Amino acid sequence: MTDRALISSLSTLEDGPVLVQGWVDTVRDQKKVQFVVLRDESGAVQLVNPRAEGRESISDTISALAQGSFISVRGQKKADERVKLGGLEVKVDEIVVETAALPETPIAEDTSIDKRLDWRFLDLRIPRNALIFRIQTTFAHAFRTYWVENGYVELFTPKLMASASESKAELFKVDYFETSAYLAQSPQFFKQMAMSSGLGKIFEIGPVFRADPSFTSRHATEFTGIDAEVSWIESHEDVMQMQEQLMVAGLHAVKDAHGEEIKALFDVDIVVPSLPFPRIPLLEAREIVEARGHKLERNDLDLDPEGERQIAAHVQETFGHEFVFLTDYPASIRPFYHMRHEGDESLTKSYDLIWNGVEISTGAQREHRVDVLEEQAKQKGMEVDELGFYLDFFRYGAPPHGGFGMGFARILMLMLHQTTLREVTYLFRGPNRLQP
Amino acid sequence: MTDRALISSLSTLEDGPVLVQGWVDTVRDQKKVQFVVLRDESGAVQLVNPRAEGRESISDTISALAQGSFISVRGQKKADERVKLGGLEVKVDEIVVETAALPETPIAEDTSIDKRLDWRFLDLRIPRNALIFRIQTTFAHAFRTYWVENGYVELFTPKLMASASESKAELFKVDYFETSAYLAQSPQFFKQMAMSSGLGKIFEIGPVFRADPSFTSRHATEFTGIDAEVSWIESHEDVMQMQEQLMVAGLHAVKDAHGEEIKALFDVDIVVPSLPFPRIPLLEAREIVEARGHKLERNDLDLDPEGERQIAAHVQETFGHEFVFLTDYPASIRPFYHMRHEGDESLTKSYDLIWNGVEISTGAQREHRVDVLEEQAKQKGMEVDELGFYLDFFRYGAPPHGGFGMGFARILMLMLHQTTLREVTYLFRGPNRLQP
Repeated sequence: MTDRALISSLSTLEDGPVLVQGWVDTVRDQKKVQFVVLRDESGAVQLVNPRAEGRESISDTISALAQGSFISVRGQKKADERVKLGGLEVKVDEIVVETAALPETPIAEDTSIDKRLDWRFLDLRIPRNALIFRIQTTFAHAFRTYWVENGYVELFTPKLMASASESKAELFKVDYFETSAYLAQSPQFFKQMAMSSGLGKIFEIGPVFRADPSFTSRHATEFTGIDAEVSWIESHEDVMQMQEQLMVAGLHAVKDAHGEEIKALFDVDIVVPSLPFPRIPLLEAREIVEARGHKLERNDLDLDPEGERQIAAHVQETFGHEFVFLTDYPASIRPFYHMRHEGDESLTKSYDLIWNGVEISTGAQREHRVDVLEEQAKQKGMEVDELGFYLDFFRYGAPPHGGFGMGFARILMLMLHQTTLREVTYLFRGPNRLQP
Repeated sequence: MTDRALISSLSTLEDGPVLVQGWVDTVRDQKKVQFVVLRDESGAVQLVNPRAEGRESISDTISALAQGSFISVRGQKKADERVKLGGLEVKVDEIVVETAALPETPIAEDTSIDKRLDWRFLDLRIPRNALIFRIQTTFAHAFRTYWVENGYVELFTPKLMASASESKAELFKVDYFETSAYLAQSPQFFKQMAMSSGLGKIFEIGPVFRADPSFTSRHATEFTGIDAEVSWIESHEDVMQMQEQLMVAGLHAVKDAHGEEIKALFDVDIVVPSLPFPRIPLLEAREIVEARGHKLERNDLDLDPEGERQIAAHVQETFGHEFVFLTDYPASIRPFYHMRHEGDESLTKSYDLIWNGVEISTGAQREHRVDVLEEQAKQKGMEVDELGFYLDFFRYGAPPHGGFGMGFARILMLMLHQTTLREVTYLFRGPNRLQP
């Protein structure tokens, strides 16, 4: 590697020679002196070049610099509290243009989101956009560290499947040699298989695919799923406890590593939530919402988006908490593999996790008794024959188990108070977006 | 959660009441006493039930136990050095069958690999198979910890693409609403995009797809790729240094966490390699191999599998090392985006990493100068128009950069001296395998 100094480290160095490398943010080309703001992944610094005899070559290079060009600069770092940008500058001794940018940059910060995504590689040079992915890194590592320290096994489940894992409606079909395959809509079946395999506790962070033609801010055709599954639970309460501990670990790590920068660039205070998160049975939540004057108008028993916002407001007012687990969803709006309550077949041992009024996750205890599972599949009108390979997982013994699935981009969206997944996904995929 | 004790923890507990939960490995149903070997994700323990008055219900339950049934057992743990299995046993007070297994287990340890994969969920109950995925967990976490501690950003690049990323020959095509998409053959283009975005250093561990119809032990249609890309390198030497440090970190962690178990179950000694790994230019390696008496017969300049074994033998004899970087591959057998040597256009700044005679990774410095890149694409007969979105990444400035890609299952295969990827993949995918 070069002996490059990250720009963020300059303030810790003695005054003297340094090499900085990055891209040109702005150039101020004045009569007596030139200024360049150079940016790298860690920050920005002012380069200065006094126009003087013997420095014409440097001056000419700077005059010709296009915004975005990547350059290497050797120079003298000097602390100077008059410099607004970090209280220091680098006087240029040598400048090398590694790659010159085309002179016209096709986007600016106020360009529409759709055009910015066309030029996503330039859009990500904006510090607040790049920060999102450093946050993603920190959050994911905190989750995985929790799992590894608690004896979970990391799996990479296949994304190519012979049949549907959830609903047939949103399946992508793949030409697979002489036959067809489908892209996994979730690792659900393969997570549960690991429980029958006796692996105990497992996790995965990986892509899932939904052939959903909707264009809402909350939907994507491909997104990163965060999944965990754990054996020998007593109820969905155990899954909630794992998940709330994970959320605390993730938000704690993000606040520690990026809290100030998030405040500066997003004007958001990261709140590490207290434990336990509030829990409210869904049917009770419906009553609370209606008592607040919101008439629920869905045909099923689920909350509508306004209902989610209302219950979040109630939770914030009552418990001062951003999160709430809505529990015990009716079986009518849950998949066949959710376990029902012993005393009340109409309710499942399941929950949704709501953050600031938006659902980010679904968890449940799964039904592990194959006769009950088969009966529940039939009740839902499913073709039990097609589920054969899945039902087999439970014919040779299986422990009680449960888990959750969560969309990574939704977390980032809510964490940073963004309104669309497009902003917080590296390369968004939707019905009419496959590039870049 | 239940107050379950992991079987591996029993030896650290005082004698007395415990709850153990797992699946039935074997039952010895004798006249005066019954023995059950119970297994969980951490180990195995002997349960004992003396047939005596008042214990008939327990005896009957044990007599009816099928192998594989998942059970919960409360009993008295007692250290007893006469017990071969761990020097302790649990006398049963209460036994609950959570799920009974069908009486006939369809596979055994000596069943053919293909049939074992049909019943993979049972196959993974074999301790040595389960161990593979605990090793996978440890290895991946060591890699990611290295990256996170060294300022890398974790990306989840899209697997749905509008066009090919590498070769058109091995592309899976997906029905995508009114059009078609393709499954990513590698994150190559998206890794490089991150360099143009100024993210500095990035990594990803995720699925890649190859519509390769071959049935060899080293090929799969879907596998987990380990990828990294880093800016401001001086040559491929910098990429090799990163990769060898990662391999040492990964193997060190695996040896620490699982070394004894790997020795016991695979009869393999994990060797943490010394740094630096030997480096041999490919053309020199060819001469060494031919001098050892192996006639290289491929049409191109690459080594054949026997050549890889021969150079590995040479490296083992000369340097006592399991690894070797073969460097400076001819441009004729490298993709268009590999950078050429300044002094010799016929050679690339690239390498393969060979472990015990098998290639596990390819790395390179990439060409970041768009005019050179375009020219190299044309030389390879590629349609430059179709590469438009990729070439754009370099038109607005890009730093010098490079990286590597590596197949996770190949690493596990070589680490554990296995002969096929099928053994070390959670759920293998090949031309005629999409289930379970």
